[in-house]
Amino acid sequence: MHTLNQLEQEAVTLIEKESFLKEPLALYEPIEYGMKQGGKRIRPLLCLIAADMFSDDIEKAKSAAIAVEILHNFTLLHDDIMDQSPLRRGKETVYKKFNSNKAILSGDTMFALAYKYLLDYDKDIAKDLVEILTQASIEVCEGQAFDMEFETRNDVSIEEYINMIRLKTGILLSCALRLGAVTANCTKENLVLLDEFAQNIGIAFQIQDDILDCWSDLEVFGKVTGKDIVDNKKTFLYLKALEIGSDRQQNILKELYSSKNFESTQKEQVVKSIYEDLKIKEIAKKEMVYYHNLAIQSLEKINIDQERKENLRLFSEKLMNRNK
Amino acid sequence: MHTLNQLEQEAVTLIEKESFLKEPLALYEPIEYGMKQGGKRIRPLLCLIAADMFSDDIEKAKSAAIAVEILHNFTLLHDDIMDQSPLRRGKETVYKKFNSNKAILSGDTMFALAYKYLLDYDKDIAKDLVEILTQASIEVCEGQAFDMEFETRNDVSIEEYINMIRLKTGILLSCALRLGAVTANCTKENLVLLDEFAQNIGIAFQIQDDILDCWSDLEVFGKVTGKDIVDNKKTFLYLKALEIGSDRQQNILKELYSSKNFESTQKEQVVKSIYEDLKIKEIAKKEMVYYHNLAIQSLEKINIDQERKENLRLFSEKLMNRNK
Repeated sequence: MHTLNQLEQEAVTLIEKESFLKEPLALYEPIEYGMKQGGKRIRPLLCLIAADMFSDDIEKAKSAAIAVEILHNFTLLHDDIMDQSPLRRGKETVYKKFNSNKAILSGDTMFALAYKYLLDYDKDIAKDLVEILTQASIEVCEGQAFDMEFETRNDVSIEEYINMIRLKTGILLSCALRLGAVTANCTKENLVLLDEFAQNIGIAFQIQDDILDCWSDLEVFGKVTGKDIVDNKKTFLYLKALEIGSDRQQNILKELYSSKNFESTQKEQVVKSIYEDLKIKEIAKKEMVYYHNLAIQSLEKINIDQERKENLRLFSEKLMNRNK
Repeated sequence: MHTLNQLEQEAVTLIEKESFLKEPLALYEPIEYGMKQGGKRIRPLLCLIAADMFSDDIEKAKSAAIAVEILHNFTLLHDDIMDQSPLRRGKETVYKKFNSNKAILSGDTMFALAYKYLLDYDKDIAKDLVEILTQASIEVCEGQAFDMEFETRNDVSIEEYINMIRLKTGILLSCALRLGAVTANCTKENLVLLDEFAQNIGIAFQIQDDILDCWSDLEVFGKVTGKDIVDNKKTFLYLKALEIGSDRQQNILKELYSSKNFESTQKEQVVKSIYEDLKIKEIAKKEMVYYHNLAIQSLEKINIDQERKENLRLFSEKLMNRNK
């Protein structure tokens, strides 16, 4: 068994040392650029943690870990075109640095490359791995479609929001864990529990993201806060405030979210003061803890020695206590 | 064994009767629309022909046939965004009817759906099928990248052009044939020969396309001819004329291809008169026949009864004698 710290280093090194450069450069340069933008490499890490839980062999999980990171980066690459996001992790996004056409095509190639890494496995498990990756990809796209649909809808429920972030975030975390677990011959029962764990952690993670975007310290967070409010993003915070606010508060929120032309500092202040009046931060934290606890309950049911679950428990706690 | 006509009808019906509609509609409506635009369904047909060659069971090949048609339509969907093409087969393209973001995301989902259909197979052959689809997808993207790169280059050789159309067209035909063949337990040796057949047919098909775009009868072809010339597309015809033309002819061609602002009717007349002076049409037809013959040579080497190869031979002849 490895320590969490060892696995974190392995995940980072694994992606850093993998080269995606080849001819035609017009296709592979954007891929190399996108894959080397840094980040916490959470998905390959989860893949390695899972492999380490069910066997001591993390070597066998490495191709799957690369596959899931490629898949994740492919979704970022296409999402950034759709959202017209100029920056990611402080650097130009792929479509900004190259162009939209190259970003579309390089993204498509990355999707295929993710599958190529799964071909490193014997046919006995290759089909299971392909099935996990495929189902996850479809659900992540469905999550993104719901997210786009919600932008133009005024009647999004909290339940719908939770389902959307489960699809957009939880599913890929689950994919990462299950890919690693399958390479370590995990049982079907334990795979189901890992899936529950990851989906709930994903929801908690995304609610945490909503909180951080609204209230974190600019210096620590590393990006401008309040962006969700300026962009009229229907976060958990916004939807909860709409649910429990007075008619007057609801009307102010709806009015402020009806246009992107309001002066942003003042808009942010008004929205945040409503959130504070309604104790939205506390409610959101409670919700986050609720989903984290659900995740831990699934983890506890996994049928292996307690000590083998420690890395995943520790990982989830670090994720919940992050400030960026 | 089936007749070619029976298989053609099966291929068309197979795609027509498959529904892709489900929630979220924002994601699946563009997919259903894209998949139901008609067309000759050449790729599912090839998949069924191959299955019928090596077994009499085309039922088993049907999921693979749907997979390859989804993959093909996914590439069209993203290509149309990149080329900003408003029409395909006389109808609005997906990105025009919906929007670019939906076309990107629905395309991504189609790519995943293609794999989902391959999960219908036992793990004994699923990995082989996934490998064929994955390698083909990567090479088709590489072909598209070369095509984009050639737009801005003035030194594209005929060899490079042939390689590009092999990747863009031949590879997917090969993928279709090999998927079908694998579902019918074709040997590795025969798979290699099918691959050679399809890649060469793909090249011949594309050269035929270049000829049809330039000289076919508008009434029969169903779309405006001369579009490649107006769009400055570096086709086989153009590259061959550059190769064998006099310095004066080369200069005229380069000059006319240096801008999209020339009056199109006159531009087309001048380019076509150079093509005619240099007998480019005859040279292109000879080249087409050369690649068709290469394909037939590979077909002849396939180790099965001659009568089992008839459908594929007939198919290739119909393809070479098409006028649209």
